[in-house]
Amino acid sequence: MSLYAVILCGGRGERFWPKSRRALPKQFIKMIGDRSMTQETSERITRLCPQDRQVFVAPVRFGPTLRRQLRLKARNLVFEPMGRNTAPAIGLAATYLARRDPDATMVVLPADHLIDNRAAFLRAVRLAARLAQDGLLVTFGIPPARPDTGYGYIQLGDAIVGNEGLSAHRVLGFREKPDAATAARYLAEGGYAWNSGMFVWRADVILAAFREFLPEFHRALGQFGATIDTGKEKAALDRLYRKAPSVSIDYAIMEKARNIAAVRGSFDWDDVGSWLALERHVKGDQDGNVAQGKCVTRDALRCIVDTDCGAVALLGVKDLVVVRSGDAVLVAHREALAGLKDLLALIAGRKETKGLL
Amino acid sequence: MSLYAVILCGGRGERFWPKSRRALPKQFIKMIGDRSMTQETSERITRLCPQDRQVFVAPVRFGPTLRRQLRLKARNLVFEPMGRNTAPAIGLAATYLARRDPDATMVVLPADHLIDNRAAFLRAVRLAARLAQDGLLVTFGIPPARPDTGYGYIQLGDAIVGNEGLSAHRVLGFREKPDAATAARYLAEGGYAWNSGMFVWRADVILAAFREFLPEFHRALGQFGATIDTGKEKAALDRLYRKAPSVSIDYAIMEKARNIAAVRGSFDWDDVGSWLALERHVKGDQDGNVAQGKCVTRDALRCIVDTDCGAVALLGVKDLVVVRSGDAVLVAHREALAGLKDLLALIAGRKETKGLL
Repeated sequence: MSLYAVILCGGRGERFWPKSRRALPKQFIKMIGDRSMTQETSERITRLCPQDRQVFVAPVRFGPTLRRQLRLKARNLVFEPMGRNTAPAIGLAATYLARRDPDATMVVLPADHLIDNRAAFLRAVRLAARLAQDGLLVTFGIPPARPDTGYGYIQLGDAIVGNEGLSAHRVLGFREKPDAATAARYLAEGGYAWNSGMFVWRADVILAAFREFLPEFHRALGQFGATIDTGKEKAALDRLYRKAPSVSIDYAIMEKARNIAAVRGSFDWDDVGSWLALERHVKGDQDGNVAQGKCVTRDALRCIVDTDCGAVALLGVKDLVVVRSGDAVLVAHREALAGLKDLLALIAGRKETKGLL
Repeated sequence: MSLYAVILCGGRGERFWPKSRRALPKQFIKMIGDRSMTQETSERITRLCPQDRQVFVAPVRFGPTLRRQLRLKARNLVFEPMGRNTAPAIGLAATYLARRDPDATMVVLPADHLIDNRAAFLRAVRLAARLAQDGLLVTFGIPPARPDTGYGYIQLGDAIVGNEGLSAHRVLGFREKPDAATAARYLAEGGYAWNSGMFVWRADVILAAFREFLPEFHRALGQFGATIDTGKEKAALDRLYRKAPSVSIDYAIMEKARNIAAVRGSFDWDDVGSWLALERHVKGDQDGNVAQGKCVTRDALRCIVDTDCGAVALLGVKDLVVVRSGDAVLVAHREALAGLKDLLALIAGRKETKGLL
């Protein structure tokens, strides 16, 4: 088995503004710890996929950042002319990998997730890779730790293999992000797992799925594949992406395919979906305040602070998210974070502030 | 009449941290507008007291800042070895001025007040200076614009001179900062004015008052005065201040003297006592947010923002004061600003943050 990591680096990371910016989204910053999330993701899988067998898929504008953060050769990089959601990125990576190694098995990992228990994660990937050899499209379901409404869910069926610590299951269905009552029911009933957006499959198997469920894009992929390593590759890639559907791999393929399975992971996983995630990874003070960087509080409750260099002082405030990064400071109520996109739209709309994005 | 401005620059400005710092308190920063408050104060009085007849009294550590902000000669500067409230500062300035000009009349002005209507202010000073020639200690009472609990009040008696626009009155008494009910009563009853902390008197008259009410300090002032322009001046000044009482001129003299009068000013005056003062001088948006510097808001109400260079973005918050200045960001609830001193004590108490003061 030839295992390759395909690390998806196309996220926009808007929910972490101003720490993440258009030019440097979440996956390229040190959200927690000393390395960027992409560096962490690379390091995490390296024992199964040494760096030469890691492929980073990203919009071409992130190239300089990727090269600065990781020592990469040309064949470790797959640049997209523009961002087009996960299905085209995965199809493109599969096309390159199938050409490089007809036996290639892909471990698809978003670059901006946090996983705490590396050994358990690698055990789960190994199991998934074994199942992938039988032609299965394997996803990872994470046993829910709380009734989270920010994740999609997978309804797990009977176990195919494994034991209580680590098992693989049939998939009864994928569920959209639920409301609070439904999330609570999923947690109470059991049998539901968070849809992590990580996958393992053979390159030829996923390409076959593209042929079945996205036939037009699959045909375009084939035409593009014929130009690889010719002088026409770049123009063909532009052509491919201009017509590529902007669609997720879940929606385009996983929800339709029959040859799927889910490995039930027993590792701590977090997609770090908003600033509130910091509370799960940084130890707070006795008043529930969580801070990365220099912070002084008096009469502050349940605040989340992240500051790059300067200090943040809180006085008599509660439930705030305060982020200082470079030339911008965000002060938001924690319950208002869903409106961050609208705030960024305001910022984008003004000549004097759009440079802050 | 020889009119001299005595500009008191000894304030600590803690209530404006982090925009004001120990090394650069409120009177030396641009709180509102393009010049520091000390520069504004100097400029405001210059038509009556050209700069050669302005004397700046400040702790010696503010010397470099003063010289940078204003072109001053030695005789325009009176340096205190340490801060000792207003009575010693005024006694010291009076000692220098009486020696320079036996006919000197002093216009005592704190360096950190805002006055909007300059012409009305100068008219009031002219009236006060005339009264001072008759041996009166003249203070300025400002007709209250609201039931402010942050100011002391003067109870005004009969008019001595003047008309409705500008008048001078007997003083029936000085009142400490009142509670809300009392402040409301003062406003309703009329006849009360804010105690502005600005004064006009002859140097010889205020020195006579020191002799009467602070006899020991007056004697020490006399001994110090004999050393001026000798090699012993500096050592004598240190000696004078080591024993100087740390007391305000209001408490030490004005509340006890009988030869006092109050000019009822008809100009807009503000001692800029806290960040909330910004609301009175900077135009707000339709949601009551007031900002100096780059600021973007969404669903923000009644917030006060001051940022030196970077931008501040507010999302779903209300009643906050957000100040970004240099290496520090303050986020405070507007009702919690009274606790700023305690917050600064916390900052001072920690090795890793005390440099922020």
